Amino acid sequence: MDPINAENFRTIWLCPDDASVVQIIDQRMLPHNYQIHDLKSWQDGVAAIKDMYVRGAPLIGATAAWSLYLAALDTKNPASEIRTAADALLKSRPTAVNLRWAVERVLATVDDTSDSNDLQVLTRCEAENICNEDIEISRGIGRHGLRLIEEIAASKNGAPVNILTHCNAGSLATINWGTATAPIYFARQQGIHVHVWVDETRPRNQGSQLTAWELAANGVPHTLIVDNAGGHLMQHGMVDLVITGTDRTTRCGDVANKIGTYLKALAAHDNDIPFYIALPSTTIDWEIRDGLTEIPIEERDPAEVTDVYGVSNSDRIHVRTTASDTPVSNYAFDVTPARLITGLITERGICAASEQGLLNLFPERRAK
Amino acid sequence: MDPINAENFRTIWLCPDDASVVQIIDQRMLPHNYQIHDLKSWQDGVAAIKDMYVRGAPLIGATAAWSLYLAALDTKNPASEIRTAADALLKSRPTAVNLRWAVERVLATVDDTSDSNDLQVLTRCEAENICNEDIEISRGIGRHGLRLIEEIAASKNGAPVNILTHCNAGSLATINWGTATAPIYFARQQGIHVHVWVDETRPRNQGSQLTAWELAANGVPHTLIVDNAGGHLMQHGMVDLVITGTDRTTRCGDVANKIGTYLKALAAHDNDIPFYIALPSTTIDWEIRDGLTEIPIEERDPAEVTDVYGVSNSDRIHVRTTASDTPVSNYAFDVTPARLITGLITERGICAASEQGLLNLFPERRAK
Repeated sequence: MDPINAENFRTIWLCPDDASVVQIIDQRMLPHNYQIHDLKSWQDGVAAIKDMYVRGAPLIGATAAWSLYLAALDTKNPASEIRTAADALLKSRPTAVNLRWAVERVLATVDDTSDSNDLQVLTRCEAENICNEDIEISRGIGRHGLRLIEEIAASKNGAPVNILTHCNAGSLATINWGTATAPIYFARQQGIHVHVWVDETRPRNQGSQLTAWELAANGVPHTLIVDNAGGHLMQHGMVDLVITGTDRTTRCGDVANKIGTYLKALAAHDNDIPFYIALPSTTIDWEIRDGLTEIPIEERDPAEVTDVYGVSNSDRIHVRTTASDTPVSNYAFDVTPARLITGLITERGICAASEQGLLNLFPERRAK
Repeated sequence: MDPINAENFRTIWLCPDDASVVQIIDQRMLPHNYQIHDLKSWQDGVAAIKDMYVRGAPLIGATAAWSLYLAALDTKNPASEIRTAADALLKSRPTAVNLRWAVERVLATVDDTSDSNDLQVLTRCEAENICNEDIEISRGIGRHGLRLIEEIAASKNGAPVNILTHCNAGSLATINWGTATAPIYFARQQGIHVHVWVDETRPRNQGSQLTAWELAANGVPHTLIVDNAGGHLMQHGMVDLVITGTDRTTRCGDVANKIGTYLKALAAHDNDIPFYIALPSTTIDWEIRDGLTEIPIEERDPAEVTDVYGVSNSDRIHVRTTASDTPVSNYAFDVTPARLITGLITERGICAASEQGLLNLFPERRAK
């Protein structure tokens, strides 16, 4: 049974049998176990975001929206519960800008509504809207990014287009289709021969455990590599295109994404390989310009580095790879400066990674 | 009991109680277990190199030399056994240039000697010479590299000099002192405040499992990071100096080293951070110029990527981190072009990464 179906697949949904339960895939268990996890309270939603049952900027946003719906189910004071939940959600992951976007959007919808029934309907509707819109955004990214792959394919005489990606900006990071993967899935549907180099993505192995899993489930040829390998592949003409996602993009096109993205951008630049970022415009932070100085970089639990999840004799376990007293630093993201980015693939089209480029696509953001 | 002692520590030695046995540390068990492994035949030596009980260019060379001594112990036809062993040793790891150097050096010593006793004495002497000389080489590298650290320390007002290193070019990669670590150990002995960022070094985790272990054993402050993190640290002024080792250096200063070194060199270059390679001159391949086209890059077992070694409930085990059918590519080295290297630290001094720079230190290598 294939859990990914290009059309109907979802990463978060309201339980069909119980409208007080939101369901997600416990992504921490992949690829070894496909396990559905129930969110029965907004606190479950906060935990799912914080402990990374769900990850990926769009899915984090959607989970926050659904958590506010769960808060609206409170029987005593749902309006106050929604505010409490919103505060906790905003603190759950510091880097993801569309966590804030989703929370504020739902809050704006409920405004000063206090009727319990209205609150439930409004939050549920808005969570569903956010999910449906996210799917449309991914489709838009897929459609525009497909053109890049088609152009490269035209010059390759049937040889595969080799695309390198870092982390998981796939279906599992969104509601469906993904951001960085959407052009790849669209190309595959067009019968274009694509092959994906999947960066393992230490420390959490989202590449080896999530991207490889969903590419396999969708029948996309791929090869897992360690994060160290991409430069070598680029030096030897084995990469035609790099596409990654982003957690936050500044007004000037600097991009915060999974730690290590900057290193791949440097290697792509050094080898004249196009380096694109796929992003829903909800991840653009129009208030900031300089990614290096203005984006706070989350530091996460050292155990993510020292302990690795895997299987041994079909038991799913964590092993500690280091000595027990090894000091560890674990920055989760880095910033790739706009100068290293060939272009940004958004739902509205592709643009240069610059303020001018972004404003051409989003003219409503021009200073009044 | 501390297994590393700066003066007396060795990574390979003749068993004091049995001159037919060479002893090594089984480095595959570190940091969880410090285990001595006996080499009782040259075949054991080949296996130790191939299966990475030992690794690191100088230690591989020394192990090859001692393996030829073990071949000389053959009771039937030691001269022929030495040739057979030499052939097998040369095939055991393709990238390490001083594996060939060590084998050829021992072969030159025995020349056409056929007397069994002479063969034993000659091979043993030459293996011991290679080890003793390697220690002197490491000391030379340490002395010269120390000057770089002293200069940086002078500008830091007592704040630590932050040095990033990749893989293990430490005591464990040599006979003692290491190459990249020798300047660090020397600086530490001088009372200079150093702090080392230790790249985990996927896929085999030589950084987290070997470098972190030996720095801890020698009391050097250090912090483990994933390979993805170095660029971020450099962008934020948290790295003063990068020093790595090398498996092979071309006549023009291109450097083959552990996969991922190239990415760190790019990041150092992008952030104006000095990037040095520490190398014994035995790892210079004077016959080749262009590292990218002329150095064959070893591809190793995919299991190195998919399976991770660690401890769980004090059991030492391997876990598979990926789905069982994930395709994997595992290139072990990459080439850092000379243009990205600030300088080469050799036993004779520091020079530019260029033919002219190297020939200034090694004038005997000028074309006649």
